[in-house]
Amino acid sequence: MALVPTLRFAEARRAVLDRVMEYRPVPEVESVGLEAAAGRVLAHPLAADRDYPPVARSLRDGFAVRAADLPGDLEVLGEVQAGGTFAGEVAPGQAVEIMTGAPLPPGADAVVMVEHTVRDGRRVRIERGAQAGEHVNQRASEARRADVLMPAGERLDYAAIALAATIGQARLTVYAQPTVAIVATGDEIVEVEASPLDYQVRNSNAWSLAAQVRRAGGRPLVLPVARDTLDSTRACIEEGLKADLLVLSGGVSAGKYDLVEPVLAELGAEFFFDRVLIQPGQPLVFGRARGKFFFGLPGNPASTMVTFELFTRAALELLSGQRETRLPLLWARLRADFHHRPGLTRFLPARLDEEGGVTSIPWRGSSDVPALARAN
Amino acid sequence: MALVPTLRFAEARRAVLDRVMEYRPVPEVESVGLEAAAGRVLAHPLAADRDYPPVARSLRDGFAVRAADLPGDLEVLGEVQAGGTFAGEVAPGQAVEIMTGAPLPPGADAVVMVEHTVRDGRRVRIERGAQAGEHVNQRASEARRADVLMPAGERLDYAAIALAATIGQARLTVYAQPTVAIVATGDEIVEVEASPLDYQVRNSNAWSLAAQVRRAGGRPLVLPVARDTLDSTRACIEEGLKADLLVLSGGVSAGKYDLVEPVLAELGAEFFFDRVLIQPGQPLVFGRARGKFFFGLPGNPASTMVTFELFTRAALELLSGQRETRLPLLWARLRADFHHRPGLTRFLPARLDEEGGVTSIPWRGSSDVPALARAN
Repeated sequence: MALVPTLRFAEARRAVLDRVMEYRPVPEVESVGLEAAAGRVLAHPLAADRDYPPVARSLRDGFAVRAADLPGDLEVLGEVQAGGTFAGEVAPGQAVEIMTGAPLPPGADAVVMVEHTVRDGRRVRIERGAQAGEHVNQRASEARRADVLMPAGERLDYAAIALAATIGQARLTVYAQPTVAIVATGDEIVEVEASPLDYQVRNSNAWSLAAQVRRAGGRPLVLPVARDTLDSTRACIEEGLKADLLVLSGGVSAGKYDLVEPVLAELGAEFFFDRVLIQPGQPLVFGRARGKFFFGLPGNPASTMVTFELFTRAALELLSGQRETRLPLLWARLRADFHHRPGLTRFLPARLDEEGGVTSIPWRGSSDVPALARAN
Repeated sequence: MALVPTLRFAEARRAVLDRVMEYRPVPEVESVGLEAAAGRVLAHPLAADRDYPPVARSLRDGFAVRAADLPGDLEVLGEVQAGGTFAGEVAPGQAVEIMTGAPLPPGADAVVMVEHTVRDGRRVRIERGAQAGEHVNQRASEARRADVLMPAGERLDYAAIALAATIGQARLTVYAQPTVAIVATGDEIVEVEASPLDYQVRNSNAWSLAAQVRRAGGRPLVLPVARDTLDSTRACIEEGLKADLLVLSGGVSAGKYDLVEPVLAELGAEFFFDRVLIQPGQPLVFGRARGKFFFGLPGNPASTMVTFELFTRAALELLSGQRETRLPLLWARLRADFHHRPGLTRFLPARLDEEGGVTSIPWRGSSDVPALARAN
């Protein structure tokens, strides 16, 4: 096996992004209705079907006027609603009552808010001046017909759904969701339904990974636990490499029963790194075999969860067809002093509160699932 | 119709939380497998099925020793793996090779990392001292048997799924998801499939709201658009009040075609507020009719989206059975100076970048869907 590098956090993340962008296949596409499109990745750009707005519109309830007439006492010709249009034209000395969203009648060039007017039968008195264009949303001020409003490769959030609906796309072409095979490794691991002996633990990593995969837009396939033999590990890895991405947990330390790297090497894998200077999660393998990417995540529950979010999630988002991927890092104020040794990048369980403060949660190390479940 | 208050932002949010907690019904429960439980709300507490860890365990690969023997040259009795147990006992002058996660053999009270040892056949030389308990995760240090590890009313994230798997809960009892009826109002609104005339817009609010409802854990039911007549508005509202929560967009300004409040009043509604001093979204109705809560959100797309996230989402989360709900407000650094008038609380489209900086997005007001879709 060739020498595999140890990387710092930022280098390792860069390596994941660069290698996936270099080798990723073009995903299949499928068509989904608007009700099922949120969270999916757009495969075709969204373009404006007409000017937005298609005509100048009022931004307020009030009166459509000619700005040059103000202040003044104007004749009210009639009214125009958001769902309507006004047949006539506003001549000097005239006004039209107008609702928010209604088209500006011809002749008018501004809107005065109803609060600043005094209505008296067929007349309206306006004591303040107005600028031409005031409270008017001009034609095409938001977008011109055929403008690309969203490029392919964006993950659709609810504002994007509103955009698609606005331009009349009741169905959207999106990329198929990548399948992600999940393999937990280790003789000490029993299935969730089992009653473990004192020295055994239940398989929690496969299920938290499945939830993380689903949240990141992938389709999780939980495979059986790989036992600490070459045959079992090889069988699970070969099965897992049939999916679009393979994620293993455990078996990647330098320990003598850590078989993931040797088996992958035997299958001809290329390794981009196998150790990253972060805590938790120093042993961390990323590579490619049989045309598929794989991650060997450390087996402690906290390490598995954290390294998935830091690295695997980015790979999965790019394999989903996203143009780019970002790590949602935030600035927050520490609620208490925090001491640490320099050199490593550490990730710890904490709670973020409503005022943007963050409090770290006491824990007993990477296997302390109760502490992790208290974090947010 | 009785006088309905205008509230400031914090007062209005408090009113939503207080009124929903006061009147909410106990949701139905259902059982789901771990693969479908993420994002659902736990209906029963999760308690530890045994001590965690059930025995003292090694936190490192290395040698299990008696701390009092160090520094020293020790006899290696054998080894113990994470999935195994050691039959004998460590007497003075003896050690057992140990893997991360393996139970500490009787007699040993500390673990020395393999990096700090020199192995020579049946002996190991350790030149540094160790404290009793070093690199050992003591029995029950994370949780004691029967400790409640997560109360009912928590929304299950991936760490909670790991916790449930760890304690052997392959199926979880969760609350049924509330149904949310969605009604857009206004004669100017056409369905997404239609070709709108210049003065018409497509129904985008119902679909962005449906995506927001689903994201917040509800089941959206998009009803037909309510026309600007009492009969149409009444029919849609009566149908919507059959769901667990009713959300309307539009029809709540002081305009003469704004029929939502009059119709709700006629149906005997109690109104908790009908205006909030925020921008966008000043006209904003929250109340209760026929035993169900309703929101009348302002109809401009930005106002609809923002007021849902600020108010309706909190109500929906509490109706889902959550113990509490929080608004994910963050501190971020403005990338450019920002000027605004005091008195109102304003919510604007912006992009948060990877370094915790925030840049506001130029926009043309609450109907500018393309600008909203560029925000994050």
